[in-house]
Amino acid sequence: MSTADRSKSSGNGRSKYKVIGTRPVRHDGVDKVTGRAKYGADVHPTGLLYAVVLRSPHAHAKIRSVDTSKAATVPGVRAIITNKDLCDPGSRMVELGEGAVNLKHLNNNILAADKVLYRGHAVAAVAADSIHIAEEAAAQICVDYEVLPSVTDVQAAMRPGAPLLHDDLFTDELGKQGSKPSNVAKHFRFEKGDTAQGFKQAKVVVEREFTTATVHQGYIEPQNATAMWNSDGHITVWCSTQGSFTVRQQVAELVGVSVSHVKVIPMEIGGGFGGKIRVYLEPLAAVLSHKTGAPVKVVMSRADVFEATGPTPGSHMKVKIGVDAAGKITAAEASIAFEAGGYPGSPVGAAAMCVFACYDVPNGRVDGYDVVVNRPQMSAYRAPGATQAAFAVETVIDEICEQLKLDPVEFRLKNAAREGTRRIDGPVFPKIGMVESTAAARDSEHYQTPLTGKHRGRGVASGFWFNIGLKSSVSATLNADGTVSLVEGSTDIGGSRASIAMQLAETLGIAAEDVIPTVVDTDSVGYTDVTGGSRVTFATGWAAYEAALDIQRQLVARAALVWECDAAAVTYVDGGVTGPKGQRMSFKELAEQVQKHGEPVVGKGAVDPEGCGGAFATHVVDVEVDPETGKVEIIRYTATQDVGTAIHPSYVEGQIQGGAAQGIGWALNEEYFYDDKGVMRNSTFLDYRMPSCYDLPMIDPVIVEVPNPGHPYGVRGVGEVPIVPPPAAIANAIYHAVGVRMTELPMSPPRVLRELLKKAK
Amino acid sequence: MSTADRSKSSGNGRSKYKVIGTRPVRHDGVDKVTGRAKYGADVHPTGLLYAVVLRSPHAHAKIRSVDTSKAATVPGVRAIITNKDLCDPGSRMVELGEGAVNLKHLNNNILAADKVLYRGHAVAAVAADSIHIAEEAAAQICVDYEVLPSVTDVQAAMRPGAPLLHDDLFTDELGKQGSKPSNVAKHFRFEKGDTAQGFKQAKVVVEREFTTATVHQGYIEPQNATAMWNSDGHITVWCSTQGSFTVRQQVAELVGVSVSHVKVIPMEIGGGFGGKIRVYLEPLAAVLSHKTGAPVKVVMSRADVFEATGPTPGSHMKVKIGVDAAGKITAAEASIAFEAGGYPGSPVGAAAMCVFACYDVPNGRVDGYDVVVNRPQMSAYRAPGATQAAFAVETVIDEICEQLKLDPVEFRLKNAAREGTRRIDGPVFPKIGMVESTAAARDSEHYQTPLTGKHRGRGVASGFWFNIGLKSSVSATLNADGTVSLVEGSTDIGGSRASIAMQLAETLGIAAEDVIPTVVDTDSVGYTDVTGGSRVTFATGWAAYEAALDIQRQLVARAALVWECDAAAVTYVDGGVTGPKGQRMSFKELAEQVQKHGEPVVGKGAVDPEGCGGAFATHVVDVEVDPETGKVEIIRYTATQDVGTAIHPSYVEGQIQGGAAQGIGWALNEEYFYDDKGVMRNSTFLDYRMPSCYDLPMIDPVIVEVPNPGHPYGVRGVGEVPIVPPPAAIANAIYHAVGVRMTELPMSPPRVLRELLKKAK
Repeated sequence: MSTADRSKSSGNGRSKYKVIGTRPVRHDGVDKVTGRAKYGADVHPTGLLYAVVLRSPHAHAKIRSVDTSKAATVPGVRAIITNKDLCDPGSRMVELGEGAVNLKHLNNNILAADKVLYRGHAVAAVAADSIHIAEEAAAQICVDYEVLPSVTDVQAAMRPGAPLLHDDLFTDELGKQGSKPSNVAKHFRFEKGDTAQGFKQAKVVVEREFTTATVHQGYIEPQNATAMWNSDGHITVWCSTQGSFTVRQQVAELVGVSVSHVKVIPMEIGGGFGGKIRVYLEPLAAVLSHKTGAPVKVVMSRADVFEATGPTPGSHMKVKIGVDAAGKITAAEASIAFEAGGYPGSPVGAAAMCVFACYDVPNGRVDGYDVVVNRPQMSAYRAPGATQAAFAVETVIDEICEQLKLDPVEFRLKNAAREGTRRIDGPVFPKIGMVESTAAARDSEHYQTPLTGKHRGRGVASGFWFNIGLKSSVSATLNADGTVSLVEGSTDIGGSRASIAMQLAETLGIAAEDVIPTVVDTDSVGYTDVTGGSRVTFATGWAAYEAALDIQRQLVARAALVWECDAAAVTYVDGGVTGPKGQRMSFKELAEQVQKHGEPVVGKGAVDPEGCGGAFATHVVDVEVDPETGKVEIIRYTATQDVGTAIHPSYVEGQIQGGAAQGIGWALNEEYFYDDKGVMRNSTFLDYRMPSCYDLPMIDPVIVEVPNPGHPYGVRGVGEVPIVPPPAAIANAIYHAVGVRMTELPMSPPRVLRELLKKAK
Repeated sequence: MSTADRSKSSGNGRSKYKVIGTRPVRHDGVDKVTGRAKYGADVHPTGLLYAVVLRSPHAHAKIRSVDTSKAATVPGVRAIITNKDLCDPGSRMVELGEGAVNLKHLNNNILAADKVLYRGHAVAAVAADSIHIAEEAAAQICVDYEVLPSVTDVQAAMRPGAPLLHDDLFTDELGKQGSKPSNVAKHFRFEKGDTAQGFKQAKVVVEREFTTATVHQGYIEPQNATAMWNSDGHITVWCSTQGSFTVRQQVAELVGVSVSHVKVIPMEIGGGFGGKIRVYLEPLAAVLSHKTGAPVKVVMSRADVFEATGPTPGSHMKVKIGVDAAGKITAAEASIAFEAGGYPGSPVGAAAMCVFACYDVPNGRVDGYDVVVNRPQMSAYRAPGATQAAFAVETVIDEICEQLKLDPVEFRLKNAAREGTRRIDGPVFPKIGMVESTAAARDSEHYQTPLTGKHRGRGVASGFWFNIGLKSSVSATLNADGTVSLVEGSTDIGGSRASIAMQLAETLGIAAEDVIPTVVDTDSVGYTDVTGGSRVTFATGWAAYEAALDIQRQLVARAALVWECDAAAVTYVDGGVTGPKGQRMSFKELAEQVQKHGEPVVGKGAVDPEGCGGAFATHVVDVEVDPETGKVEIIRYTATQDVGTAIHPSYVEGQIQGGAAQGIGWALNEEYFYDDKGVMRNSTFLDYRMPSCYDLPMIDPVIVEVPNPGHPYGVRGVGEVPIVPPPAAIANAIYHAVGVRMTELPMSPPRVLRELLKKAK
């Protein structure tokens, strides 16, 4: 059965739509495959200068002084900047669309002030006539460092006596400030019911400890920025970003101008996955442009990307779950400590929201710790925090199922969160698809087919991501040929031009191909939050729906004028209007009419919607473990997911497959490998081992559609949750293959072999 | 008195506005003066090819064959096209925003089919790796011409036996098709009252014949186009144009795709004046791109611009006016024959609408003739046709005033068109400012100061332009810092970013500097007609006003939410909202509120307004004529004009000065000089004599404001009418200086000397 057949078989009543659920060619497809699409590095304004960032070779050091005098004499050098050249924005918190950021930390992360906090931390930047001159000059900048002891491990960082990164961070004990400086930036707790009582009701209680490694999003395109600070005070920034308005705001804050003085032109983006929301280079390019009067471009190397952009945190977690004789969860506890990197702000909050969210947990408690360590400041990465948490919870559940001799899928169905379930962190679920997506896993051909063979095992795990809404704007204009030009502010990473255009097309009753979507700069569309949180197809799609309704209203009014009747007597239906006497004008006829007479038809949509629908996924994986080497081979992989409504099933499948592939890499191979000096030793794609097509079988996506009642077309958001189950599912499969419980990521050959050898003793 | 003082002195109640009537720095000013603004020739997409157009050396010839085989072998040549490579669009008429065009003629003008009709007519185009290769290859294309006799003079072309340009054009005698082929493409007539009767009532009747030379707009930036025909069938065009949507439509028709497959990116434009509406190069670049798979750029030389783009027609006119003893016009007749160039379509229709429009003419008749000649196809040029017509009418009136011993300004005031006057071509004037602008000329210090000195004379003339409305769209989005980003489709030639932004700012009660206007491509804004006809500040300004009202409504609704009251109880006033209990939020506070909570605020405006207000101007000029050489020196120049409301007085003054300067060039020096082979002999700016700052005194603009009741801010449109009076005013001044009546333009030294010598005989 092909994936196309499978998605059709989900029987969601899709037939009520004409465009939604079909698979048109994406509007930007040809540009992407022919290489015409313009990415950030493809920008070459006249008179361009090239910049290089000088980075710390130390994981932790005081900066005694920076001497740029020698570097400044290199012929062709135009400007050199350090932190002093940035605007001091104070310590205000600024909302970035996926969480708030402290501006002082953002500022210090872009160019270190008094201390460097990780290897790769930016210290100075040089603009010159060529990249080679800039590199030469950067090498001649003399930084006098006082090297300090470093700590790169979250557990070590929490211990008394650990090297302290900041002297103004105090252990925040559940909201109270501690008296002694500490690396713990934040400690918070969610509680529901009485966990002590709950554990008493349990027949089986399993408590385990877990660690996961820092992993990087591994987007193909490195960070880049080109900026031109014009002499009228207006700054133009070209870059690859998930949020052009977010870049606008950050640049404005960090260089000290008003947001309307910054225009961000979002270029195509070669992957982001959460890592391209925070700025690194844009303010540097802007300030260098200000100093030189010329446009300045700066592009990261792959090592820069690994060492100086935000990966997702490594973690240390404890999870304890109690289950009664009937197989129902009675209580659950988790303690989750995340690496924040050099500055506070890990996604541990989201981890705590997601950790038990798949289940109806009557009594629960979650503690979260945000811990600074000498690593780059962490960023979002696809369902940030949820994957780490699921690794812990879902393997504990597997162990409980084993002890209670319960089928792991049936256990999940029995305990599944459903409409009305209250999460430990508070919210009560509306209609959700945990049951449906898990049932789809159970009913899949994969799960129904027994696995045979030596050293082989099957694992199951579920995952949750809440998805977000936030602000989106579009405008849409009617063309004389009956097409609609759609202007949107959401940068398109995974096919959102198509998924947004299709919702406009569905609403207007026209073909997806008759919509021409364009992602424009921040001066040319209403405010739009980041492409992240699986929000774009949900929220920007909703904006497109609103714009289409706006166009409908105008066309109805126009038809009423033509037919000399009341607008209320005209109906917009089936891609056209019907009059009181049965008159009919098609969309194309209306478009011709509008071009001939009267004002142009322009629709707009601007939304900040409630009604996000959470996403649930259950994955089934078969592995074969080589007992000689510990290498784990993925034999078969099936990923079910409630996607709400699959607007464009091919891209939904692609998201599921991509998320699963990234989760598999995280599970098996990826990790930041630091030496005892805090230096990353595998900062290239040769050494940082992401899965390639040689490592993976076909990942079979199974689309389950439980339409989100909070969206006009039932959209939930798709992109994030598929990364959540893989590490846990694979850990469970390894156990069932060779009998070792893995509690540490990645489950790379040495670690698996170590556990196999331990077991063999 | 400075111009600023003078414009204030017009006492129009401007004080009711806060932004309108002020003089903020234009938003694109710094880019224009620092050279950062990007014009069409500044586009350099990756892999760009360069094209050259091979042009006819003959004024009139049959094309027997075009042999491109040798040229095609030049290394580096990528494609060669002729007319066969264009799509045959048939003979449909297509509206271009300033008049309709026959698609077959447009097609043949871009690349000649069977005949070349003027020297410079495009015959083939070559795309190559460099411009030099393209030039070399173009020189090796062999065109076999059968040279035909040519006719470049409108009177000669109308005579029986003249060489015929087209064998399918028949004299159209007032709507009826004639039986014999002719160069007269159209003959039409406007009539009002009984002219024979009218002339009987006259005390004085003067009838004169006039000729005017072909003149070019003389924009600084030559025509240019870059096009990329993508493999998905979508075409991107970068060019300098007055109408991006017009280019979109023309390209679509000529290459045979739907309009939505063409995206036009309008670059900055270095002058247009009507000459950059029709396409010349864009379809060639597109077809060459289609053939080569690469972007293709083509830029005209100055000689190309003169010889192959549309100047304004030379003319032959007869005007007869009768005036009674009381000094009132009793009847007027005009016969106006315009050169159309190689294909029909001169602006003779507009000339006929304008010719007597300054006056209340009880009995009138106007005949118009559109005549093809072997010159480039004519285009619009600032108040197209009105300047030629005014030259005839205003000098006849001057002669009548002389005969009746009437002050020429008083005569104009007595006979002025005013509210309720019906034009000969039909329309009845709403409130207009012919009286007020003429009175301002009378009351000017200039006119009140007697002119002394030998060979000096003062001339007066009036002019009319009707101005147009048409479609415009904008969208406007609220930024968090209380500014508004304004997206518009009107290309900005003369400061319209400012004049549109100011109307948005006025309506919202914010500063002009708090609006960020951007001119975007055709995919990113609603349909917008050409920048021409003095329509942009009127119509696009109106769209901005509508967008501001839309924003007002949303902010009122938002405030009502915040204050928990009914929206009807909230008032938008003074750049903010006031609540029922006297609560107040400023625009900036509202912007912050919107950024924090709820959907973004996006306003839109899309209009096709009625209510155009005609523009009237009266100019006073003092000249000194050198009786030895016939050279005319402009000593003093005052230009009064009813501008409706002066949105940005500096740009209004600039338009008046620029129009007058162009009119002076037209009057005194400019002409297409053809030899007997139909070859233009002065196709450079050295030989085609436009006035420079050495030739002109300060031109004093006097702004008169009779607000247009048909526009929310009283806008009429400013840019065109100031070119209308100068030739007539100067002719009248020459007469009063040295006693010769000039009836031929330009009034260059040889012609003036000839008349002086005739008179001396």
